[in-house]
Amino acid sequence: MLPDRREPRIRARPAIPVDAFLSEAVRLADAALECALPRADAWPARLHQAMRHSVFAGGKRLRPALVLGACRACVGDDVLCAPAMAAIELLHTYTLVHDDLPAMDDDDLRRGRPTCHKAFDEATAILAGDALQALAFETVAALGADAVAVLARAGGSRGVVGGQQEDLDAEGAPVDASDACRARLERIHRGKTAAMIACACELGALSAGASPAERAALVRYGEAVGLAFQIADDVLDATASAAVLGKTPGKDAAQGKLTYVAVYGLERARSEALRLERDAVAALAPLGDGGEQLVALAHFVVGRDH
Amino acid sequence: MLPDRREPRIRARPAIPVDAFLSEAVRLADAALECALPRADAWPARLHQAMRHSVFAGGKRLRPALVLGACRACVGDDVLCAPAMAAIELLHTYTLVHDDLPAMDDDDLRRGRPTCHKAFDEATAILAGDALQALAFETVAALGADAVAVLARAGGSRGVVGGQQEDLDAEGAPVDASDACRARLERIHRGKTAAMIACACELGALSAGASPAERAALVRYGEAVGLAFQIADDVLDATASAAVLGKTPGKDAAQGKLTYVAVYGLERARSEALRLERDAVAALAPLGDGGEQLVALAHFVVGRDH
Repeated sequence: MLPDRREPRIRARPAIPVDAFLSEAVRLADAALECALPRADAWPARLHQAMRHSVFAGGKRLRPALVLGACRACVGDDVLCAPAMAAIELLHTYTLVHDDLPAMDDDDLRRGRPTCHKAFDEATAILAGDALQALAFETVAALGADAVAVLARAGGSRGVVGGQQEDLDAEGAPVDASDACRARLERIHRGKTAAMIACACELGALSAGASPAERAALVRYGEAVGLAFQIADDVLDATASAAVLGKTPGKDAAQGKLTYVAVYGLERARSEALRLERDAVAALAPLGDGGEQLVALAHFVVGRDH
Repeated sequence: MLPDRREPRIRARPAIPVDAFLSEAVRLADAALECALPRADAWPARLHQAMRHSVFAGGKRLRPALVLGACRACVGDDVLCAPAMAAIELLHTYTLVHDDLPAMDDDDLRRGRPTCHKAFDEATAILAGDALQALAFETVAALGADAVAVLARAGGSRGVVGGQQEDLDAEGAPVDASDACRARLERIHRGKTAAMIACACELGALSAGASPAERAALVRYGEAVGLAFQIADDVLDATASAAVLGKTPGKDAAQGKLTYVAVYGLERARSEALRLERDAVAALAPLGDGGEQLVALAHFVVGRDH
């Protein structure tokens, strides 16, 4: 679908420190999002204001960073992956807006700011989420129908929405170390987190015109990093202080939530995250030196303290 | 994007009676939807059951019928437009599921059956709508990135979601014959109804590999039919009996809703619908005999009594 628009250079650019890389990703993602989103005063203004409120809310832009890292790993120019960086963040943002609704997690604050339905109203938040999803697909269409299908599968009933549904279905069910709980936990984490993170890596590869082998390697990397990210999140919730976390710690346990720590215990959760980090790094082998930035990103995701 | 896959015949098939055409459209749309939707027992089963509950709820499949009519008018084979028939109905269904939510129109029944959040629960209905939207884009991706962009624009913040937002914003505002009310009414109707009906016609043309002139003609036809459809709806609500309508008539007026009848009066609304029908028929001129089925469909849409 995409013409091969790679730069003539044959080696990926050298890795830079993770914080510098993440800053670059934030800058590029924000520029791509600014370009994709209608102006706040364009009709219908209230809807566009609600969409912008949720998109420009201080997010870390981890998914766009993985798009960028995967694109660079496949020797693609940054400009090629701008639509994918914007699209994955638009889709991720809509899931947060809907998850925060009273009928779902009923959260009033996200990163210290009022959630969309608090800053506006519930109906506007439902519609803003709906419109953000449509805009994600309009934006990713610039990369061709293959990219649309990849995003739609990750964002659909067998991806992120399915994981959220399973999470809902699990509410109130007993949490133990049984096989049933372990299987359910894996389905939730694969759906809610790993599907979108693997999708980010795949879209980065696709933007760069990667070979099938490179693309498959980046999907495997993304699945491992996605699961490791979620486990690290569970560990942080169980161990970090409120000051470090920026939210109330221990909330998962208090709510009887199905987490890695609840099912496997803290030590096993930590070792599983490290094992997944090794899997992720191993998956990058076909990319050679090009994978170095993603190796550093995987280490960051597992080791982060907030 | 699409190869030219037209049948070698050079004339569109002759028009058939509207009721026979609509029956064919229902059969073809239901088959395409059955094919697009995951099985009800596939993970996550509750979500897939909610999606199927809302999709297979006795809808008239008017939008897929317009896809089919437009495809046939451009001498395209029926099989070419199956993805577009399914996608437009999946997107339309998600808007109904979300519109029925307590925070929006708060409807318990649709066509005499429990709405999604009544048959399941509110969180599941939000997620089922979200997943139906993703599935619409996954399905339409089979027709190429151009079709995705067409559907995303019609289904986005400046299309159907924008119309719904303007409808919300209008709640409680005075309804009169002022220019402001008329402009707002047009924005609501263009967004909520005409955008998706024009999109159905454009996707039908695109599926058939239509020429730019044919495609533009069908968009103009769809915009006029879409507005006529909405005005006919407003007239029906104000005039028909409950038995004919299958729902409580006069509900719009009782709720102080901004409708064509409220702003322009019954006679002017009727004449405006007929004027739009003439516009729609005139727009079909470039299609010659191929447009006959769509002429009959426009007449049906304006003249229907339920």
